Amino acid sequence: MRFDIVTLFPDFFGSPLSSGLLGKALAKHIAEVHLTNPRDFTTDKHHRVDDEPYGGGVGMLMKPEPIFAAVESLPISPQRQVLMMTPQGETMHQGMFRDFAANCDQLVIICGHYEGVDERVLNLVTREVSLGDFVLTCGEIPALTLLNGVIRLLPGTVGKEESLKLESFEDGLLDYPQYTRPPVFREWEVPEVLRSGNHQAIAQWRTEQQQQRTRDRRPDLYEKWERGKKSGD
Amino acid sequence: MRFDIVTLFPDFFGSPLSSGLLGKALAKHIAEVHLTNPRDFTTDKHHRVDDEPYGGGVGMLMKPEPIFAAVESLPISPQRQVLMMTPQGETMHQGMFRDFAANCDQLVIICGHYEGVDERVLNLVTREVSLGDFVLTCGEIPALTLLNGVIRLLPGTVGKEESLKLESFEDGLLDYPQYTRPPVFREWEVPEVLRSGNHQAIAQWRTEQQQQRTRDRRPDLYEKWERGKKSGD
Repeated sequence: MRFDIVTLFPDFFGSPLSSGLLGKALAKHIAEVHLTNPRDFTTDKHHRVDDEPYGGGVGMLMKPEPIFAAVESLPISPQRQVLMMTPQGETMHQGMFRDFAANCDQLVIICGHYEGVDERVLNLVTREVSLGDFVLTCGEIPALTLLNGVIRLLPGTVGKEESLKLESFEDGLLDYPQYTRPPVFREWEVPEVLRSGNHQAIAQWRTEQQQQRTRDRRPDLYEKWERGKKSGD
Repeated sequence: MRFDIVTLFPDFFGSPLSSGLLGKALAKHIAEVHLTNPRDFTTDKHHRVDDEPYGGGVGMLMKPEPIFAAVESLPISPQRQVLMMTPQGETMHQGMFRDFAANCDQLVIICGHYEGVDERVLNLVTREVSLGDFVLTCGEIPALTLLNGVIRLLPGTVGKEESLKLESFEDGLLDYPQYTRPPVFREWEVPEVLRSGNHQAIAQWRTEQQQQRTRDRRPDLYEKWERGKKSGD
């Protein structure tokens, strides 16, 4: 799978792309990441990528021409999506990552900057994607999040494929509490049932914990999960 | 404001902390970021930070002792929060960032890894925070997001303070469309009203666009905004 990140700050990606599991996945060529800087596609001598907003307002906007030229310089794979990272987009979720991992062979990710991006850039874009209901200084962090979440789902990134299936959100519930050694740490013990060796009791305890935790912390997710369960009956 | 990131992969943060607006803010000492590696606090000769889960399951968990030792080695400021990055936590939002920026002088951010973290680590933690309803290979990306979103709100990071107030989520609505030069790019024109010089008409157009866009794309936000408006009357 090919990722093209269109970014004014390609240097941002140096250490995150060479560290941890993502770094290993890229070293194994499970995916390839290409960085393209709109500034390299400017035609004026000052290499300007931003300008003032029409109608007034504070801050600068990214101009449309360098972004169009950058995206139009890229190869086009058959299953390509062009994504704009923007707080106005659809909020990222696990189903979106699964969809991209299963159905795309190229993701072009445009990172916004300054106060925003000229609206006409959306004519290039197939989907607007948001990291969440907050504002950051740059679109590079949302881009990195999406990259990580999608590459993580590609075969070979995570050692044991089963571990992808037992996690938060894969079944619509939060994860259960987990414990490792020592059995007693300071005043806190590992719950008895987990040390019992009774696999049925452990499975039941974990399911109960997942449901209770989701109900307490995320009633929105719990309701969705209950509805899905009923319609699946 | 002091940030302490407790991470098994301090190298991850190299380029993101020295790039763009965040890099500039740190160079200006608007905030300081310290990286602490739990591996440096192991006492066995193999420096083990992970172990198998009780009750069975795939993957490894982060052990409690090195994380406790790492966090307990840090200085304690009066307005400190200790945050765990986990999909089980409260989803990040702009109000949370504002709260941290206004009310904290130290944020300790614990990054999870592997299949998760021993539940007893939560005894150290004042708040569990989630980036969103998806799974990543690491807690470093959520940590970086929080760092960026909070430091962005500290005085001096963003050039003109007004630009913090006119953005997405600050008034509970999505942002309006923005345009810069050229007035005509390919077949797309900048809307007439924005070039009219009529400030009242521009303000009205922008408000209408914000409301329409939020209603179309994020009915959840729109409903909340409408309720807030009524109760404010």
